[in-house]
Amino acid sequence: MHWSRWGDPHRTAALPDNAGELMAFAFGEVTPRPAVDRADVRLPASRLTPAHQQAYAAAVTPEQVATDDTARVEHTRGKSTPDLLAARAGDFSAAPDAVIRPGSVDEIVEVLRVSEREHIAVVPFGGGTSVVGGLAPDGASYAAVIALDLRRLDRVVELDEISRTATLQAGMLGPEVEKALAAEGYTLGHFPQSFEYASVGGFAATRSSGQSSSGYGRFDAMVVALTIATPSGTWHIGRSPASAAGPDLRQLVLGSEGAFGVITDVTVMVRPVPQAKAYETWRFASFAEGATAMRTLVQDRINPTVLRLSDETETAINLSDPSAIGLNADGGCQLVCGYEGTEQRVARMRAEAGETLTGLGGTLVGEKGGDAWAEGRFDAPYLRDTLLDEGVLVETLETATTWANLPRLYDAVRAAIDAAAKGQGVDPIVLCHISHVYPAGASLYFTVAMRETDDPPAQWVPVKQVAGDAISQHGGTITHHHAVGRDHKPWLADEIGDTGVAVLRAVKETLDPEGVLNPGVLIP
Amino acid sequence: MHWSRWGDPHRTAALPDNAGELMAFAFGEVTPRPAVDRADVRLPASRLTPAHQQAYAAAVTPEQVATDDTARVEHTRGKSTPDLLAARAGDFSAAPDAVIRPGSVDEIVEVLRVSEREHIAVVPFGGGTSVVGGLAPDGASYAAVIALDLRRLDRVVELDEISRTATLQAGMLGPEVEKALAAEGYTLGHFPQSFEYASVGGFAATRSSGQSSSGYGRFDAMVVALTIATPSGTWHIGRSPASAAGPDLRQLVLGSEGAFGVITDVTVMVRPVPQAKAYETWRFASFAEGATAMRTLVQDRINPTVLRLSDETETAINLSDPSAIGLNADGGCQLVCGYEGTEQRVARMRAEAGETLTGLGGTLVGEKGGDAWAEGRFDAPYLRDTLLDEGVLVETLETATTWANLPRLYDAVRAAIDAAAKGQGVDPIVLCHISHVYPAGASLYFTVAMRETDDPPAQWVPVKQVAGDAISQHGGTITHHHAVGRDHKPWLADEIGDTGVAVLRAVKETLDPEGVLNPGVLIP
Repeated sequence: MHWSRWGDPHRTAALPDNAGELMAFAFGEVTPRPAVDRADVRLPASRLTPAHQQAYAAAVTPEQVATDDTARVEHTRGKSTPDLLAARAGDFSAAPDAVIRPGSVDEIVEVLRVSEREHIAVVPFGGGTSVVGGLAPDGASYAAVIALDLRRLDRVVELDEISRTATLQAGMLGPEVEKALAAEGYTLGHFPQSFEYASVGGFAATRSSGQSSSGYGRFDAMVVALTIATPSGTWHIGRSPASAAGPDLRQLVLGSEGAFGVITDVTVMVRPVPQAKAYETWRFASFAEGATAMRTLVQDRINPTVLRLSDETETAINLSDPSAIGLNADGGCQLVCGYEGTEQRVARMRAEAGETLTGLGGTLVGEKGGDAWAEGRFDAPYLRDTLLDEGVLVETLETATTWANLPRLYDAVRAAIDAAAKGQGVDPIVLCHISHVYPAGASLYFTVAMRETDDPPAQWVPVKQVAGDAISQHGGTITHHHAVGRDHKPWLADEIGDTGVAVLRAVKETLDPEGVLNPGVLIP
Repeated sequence: MHWSRWGDPHRTAALPDNAGELMAFAFGEVTPRPAVDRADVRLPASRLTPAHQQAYAAAVTPEQVATDDTARVEHTRGKSTPDLLAARAGDFSAAPDAVIRPGSVDEIVEVLRVSEREHIAVVPFGGGTSVVGGLAPDGASYAAVIALDLRRLDRVVELDEISRTATLQAGMLGPEVEKALAAEGYTLGHFPQSFEYASVGGFAATRSSGQSSSGYGRFDAMVVALTIATPSGTWHIGRSPASAAGPDLRQLVLGSEGAFGVITDVTVMVRPVPQAKAYETWRFASFAEGATAMRTLVQDRINPTVLRLSDETETAINLSDPSAIGLNADGGCQLVCGYEGTEQRVARMRAEAGETLTGLGGTLVGEKGGDAWAEGRFDAPYLRDTLLDEGVLVETLETATTWANLPRLYDAVRAAIDAAAKGQGVDPIVLCHISHVYPAGASLYFTVAMRETDDPPAQWVPVKQVAGDAISQHGGTITHHHAVGRDHKPWLADEIGDTGVAVLRAVKETLDPEGVLNPGVLIP
């Protein structure tokens, strides 16, 4: 992972020709704003004492305790736009004091014990792709902060072909999971935009949801069992896909963001590698009509594998195909519809969905747009870096609500973002799509782009603030699939109530009495 | 509800002719054991003081505070066989000291405040159908015990036809829910065997699962939002069908069995009343072959609405049709397969399932057995009373596990029950069916029948003990859809770990610091 950008350091996304035109049209003149040189990065001295270092070395071997600048820089914060802006400005004040790389669950427990004893904050670190400040703890009151890098836990522990489950270690990245499973004929089917760099532990800790969630389900819905390590030992939960033996404690650990313990392995449902895949695009006259069509599909339990509806603005600039962004004059709203499974199942789903979509005013455009979407589905974060280079601030945020409340929430969030940006004297582009659907509701995923002013990090703060307020005041959840981290904490109490916060605190105190686990995230 | 039997006091189930023959064959001579007369029931004096009575009367009006024997008898324990045996013997030592019937959520909060102040234990009481000792609290150390009867909370609070959700008050019974929803064209689709008497609050508090779970899902999976009342106020959880805003706290309240608070309303997904219903039976050569066929259906996401496979013994005595129990010589194992939905969907599911089932060795028997099952689906509890009258002890227990582990668990539980009964000098009949399936696993539901010896309550204890031990030692969950109550507590720590128990305790202390909510259930 690049130290100040998304993804593969050898890969950059050029701006499509049309995008330049679009930018000029939308933003007027922008001022390129390159990142500082890596050499200019300021890094505070590591607070890890020789005694700490020795204790950790005893837990994981000396080679797996790193305090060098490279390791520390690579484990600083996540990949939100504010995180990137800080990195691009050379600000690594949030760097951990050391990076510890355990090779086993026992080593993790030992590291947690040392951390508890020495009052050192522990940030579980998988792929480092958090976009909510989940990797930047409140470390000041601790003796030090360590990043607990889980990448050495990279095995498939067990594949149960009868039950169609796989037990995956937390440090496996998305592509590693798919490669290992594909060798046996299976897929997990979890493809968030961060897929190429995100880890199994992160999927679980943040309740991730992938682009194929309509067919494969959210990550939390795939989980049959999981294990977390805490300072007092490991805790395994889940004997059966379903149970009535009290509250479902798996769902208390899923979404716990490293604050309750370190997720070390997850047993998930897997499926056969699909024989066939087909992606196509449809066109609807309006976002509302397209949303009604999606709702009908999911409520009638016709579940294409992928469903993604862009609103009028997102359709107009062709965001679903990052290689062809620009002004698109076709009008209306684009729906990407993907089908995966046996040849027979794909044909059947396609016919059923097609009948519904046509009946509700949709026009089949064809496979070209669908294939372009599938091709570019992990590229958008690269484009964000290019835009940041150009002086265009781009960030995303998401929510979810019931179908009945969706139009109201959509209008409120868009209006709030628009007003906040205009208050700074810039015209934003606000795009939205629905990409995760449930019988009772759906997500809204907003992308905001605006000309950078003098202080881009400060520029985003009020926009995020009003967007979060609008979400909260209009009945949306503050995050549909990106977790709470530090960035969403201001709205959590409103969402889960003071009682919910008290319950989270009580659980945290039980599992992490010294409070060393990812302090400052999740719990207000 | 009858004071010492299941269900409608005016309804009894006669033993089918063949059943007498079967009983004689299986058990030899049995000694009828009628219940005591209602007049002989021993009831301890109510411990509710005039001051308590006044305080509760102020909370809910004097008419809604009952200390008469009838009310107390009707709110004593649940409907497990041990509960019935106690009632039949005239033992009402577990009677609550009073029955309080609040009419609103505010009144519930007020009752909880009074109870906390006066140190009075509160048993939330919906339909009174618990089969796990969920309604018999450890009341000795309290000033008194009240049953909090929720039946006056019997309204549909909201029907959201866009999101296809209904907010149901906790005191609605199954038939009331279906009647109210049917008037608007919807169904909940939740039909546990207790359907006719069980309540919405109970479904939620115990993680109930219905006979149509293959199509409609478990109750906990239908829940979008819910509200619980605690001594410090109400707590509403759930803004969206799905969220990443931390742990899913809905799943912490579902299955909390009244120990964390009183569930007052639940927002659930509803569906259109099905146009068409078809039930048919299939025959497989063995339980293993039938189980493989069920597994294939659910893993291939062909989900008939109802799937219920009887093992060889259950098939041989025709348990799936309570009106025709007796020796059945057809051999093999019967699978009931039900389809509900639009005409088109039923036809499609039926064709798809039929192809799979035939391909895996199944033979379609026809609709007769399926219709008989559907007709008698809520009758078995009446038959249990008749058998108890006859001197035959009948009880059920259930578990669930992964598909890979299912055969091992099935063998272990059957062998344990068989050995324990034989140790008492009686030959048991042990029947089993699979009736709730998931891609990763399934439930096992055992029915045990044996000739009563001198002390039937004492007779069941060692059988339950060894069955629970076998479940626990062989990787099953101690309960798939009946909750923990008092009866499953001995195995809970083994299942969720000491850490899980500590977490439940911490949550309980946060929500119910005085420990007045259903003390003695759930938490070891």
